[in-house]
Amino acid sequence: MSYGNGVSRDKEQRLLQMFNGSSRLGALLGIKLSFDEQDHAVLELPYNPRLDHSRGGTHGGVIATLLDNAGWFTCAAAHPGDGWVATTELTVHLLRPALRTDLRATGELLKVGKRQGVARMECRDSQGQLVAHGVGTFVYLDNLPLEPTELRE
Amino acid sequence: MSYGNGVSRDKEQRLLQMFNGSSRLGALLGIKLSFDEQDHAVLELPYNPRLDHSRGGTHGGVIATLLDNAGWFTCAAAHPGDGWVATTELTVHLLRPALRTDLRATGELLKVGKRQGVARMECRDSQGQLVAHGVGTFVYLDNLPLEPTELRE
Amino acid sequence: MSYGNGVSRDKEQRLLQMFNGSSRLGALLGIKLSFDEQDHAVLELPYNPRLDHSRGGTHGGVIATLLDNAGWFTCAAAHPGDGWVATTELTVHLLRPALRTDLRATGELLKVGKRQGVARMECRDSQGQLVAHGVGTFVYLDNLPLEPTELRE
Amino acid sequence: MSYGNGVSRDKEQRLLQMFNGSSRLGALLGIKLSFDEQDHAVLELPYNPRLDHSRGGTHGGVIATLLDNAGWFTCAAAHPGDGWVATTELTVHLLRPALRTDLRATGELLKVGKRQGVARMECRDSQGQLVAHGVGTFVYLDNLPLEPTELRE
Repeated sequence: MSYGNGVSRDKEQRLLQMFNGSSRLGALLGIKLSFDEQDHAVLELPYNPRLDHSRGGTHGGVIATLLDNAGWFTCAAAHPGDGWVATTELTVHLLRPALRTDLRATGELLKVGKRQGVARMECRDSQGQLVAHGVGTFVYLDNLPLEPTELRE
Repeated sequence: MSYGNGVSRDKEQRLLQMFNGSSRLGALLGIKLSFDEQDHAVLELPYNPRLDHSRGGTHGGVIATLLDNAGWFTCAAAHPGDGWVATTELTVHLLRPALRTDLRATGELLKVGKRQGVARMECRDSQGQLVAHGVGTFVYLDNLPLEPTELRE
Repeated sequence: MSYGNGVSRDKEQRLLQMFNGSSRLGALLGIKLSFDEQDHAVLELPYNPRLDHSRGGTHGGVIATLLDNAGWFTCAAAHPGDGWVATTELTVHLLRPALRTDLRATGELLKVGKRQGVARMECRDSQGQLVAHGVGTFVYLDNLPLEPTELRE
Repeated sequence: MSYGNGVSRDKEQRLLQMFNGSSRLGALLGIKLSFDEQDHAVLELPYNPRLDHSRGGTHGGVIATLLDNAGWFTCAAAHPGDGWVATTELTVHLLRPALRTDLRATGELLKVGKRQGVARMECRDSQGQLVAHGVGTFVYLDNLPLEPTELRE
């Protein structure tokens, strides 16, 4: 299923630079962003015991963070505009525990409009098993620049 | 609105000890758990710039983590059983940016059944403004102990 | 909790006329719209066995319809603009069966912005028990008129 | 992607008989159920102007009903048990208007467990365009029979 093909490699480069260079939460958790050949954002998280909940699976909030990012970057890359994107809504289904495993989340466009994009996301463990599923709405804010301003240190 | 009154203070004590004593993700992010007089779980997060996204608001994944915990602990405290609880589904609406502010998330029971609880959650900034809203489903797993086993270090 | 006070009684009148006068699905199911003093939309559905599922509770799709309308009209009334509103996302939690009972759904604003509103909704049975809970996103389309055009018969 | 293969054709026959023979809401709206070769439930709704909202698209509540049924029957067919199934949660994204078009919704299993199934659903118009997307949780209630009892007339 193909939803569009106008994704700009240049925009993907800017998004990669933004995330891998300056995302503090991404650095704190150890998440890495890339794009696959179908312009799906791919978020990879090597296993880190500090992100486990008390019974020893990766915390659902961490998985929600991966899914949010996978949808956000997929929708950001698909939009021709040059502005910021805001997640306004995120639905997550946690399907099985993620036990001491690397995780990989990917996004897939359901819709890209002028005002908002909708994506669905999957998170899989190192064996390829589906750990979690998400759907999110991402609003395009053309009046806010994509890159952080100098005011933010 | 009151949905039940059988919440055990003893169970709340065990949950507090579990989270504040041994949650590694809670410690990493700086989250503190308490319960208010209505047995709502309260999750507090002092402002931490390392949890900001690139444009300088607290990352939605962190807010989702607060909401997930607020619902989880509210549902765990309301259940008479002694077992583990699993978040199976979480819906988050991000309503306004959280800019350089402490955050406080609370849970409110919508239902507590034998097999699952449903809670809705609110996250507010230091001025009391509603930053995000959540609803989640939390399944009771009576065959898994609540406390981590010794196998987990 | 109050989220705003600029709701125009005139706009509520137009919305009431639109729904109660010309909603074909509303007429088919037997739903009636009103607004309470806090400008929450109220949707009432007398018990109708034709809307039951096979085991004899009101079908979840009917309850989702009530919740959708409750959020839609609450957000439509709260917006100063004059255009159409589109539901873009709806999350429903079905909490207990609705057995041979009248139903009443109400909406409550979580946010009203220039581009979209977010509402949460409750559906209760004739004893006031919470049957279902919803949250939805409603986008304001100022370029589409609120009233149906003459082209629609 | 295949999530399981133990779907019983016999159970599908019972589900078809139950829905096409006795669903009153299905009859009221004009919905027909079938299963495709991959055991996905398929719900078809010919265009019916009585199900339009005031601006002339099929009402979102009707689309939510199609998606709910698509997930419900997909999860019911995939479960080896013999009991009733309850939708406990449904998330719907409405992606584009459904204008004077037949609709077709299909379900796809994300998980089938002992206690609950999770499915995602798509609704397409007569040109195959994606109109809406859903995800739902469906709980298995083995103590309630699947077929309506004689008490229900």
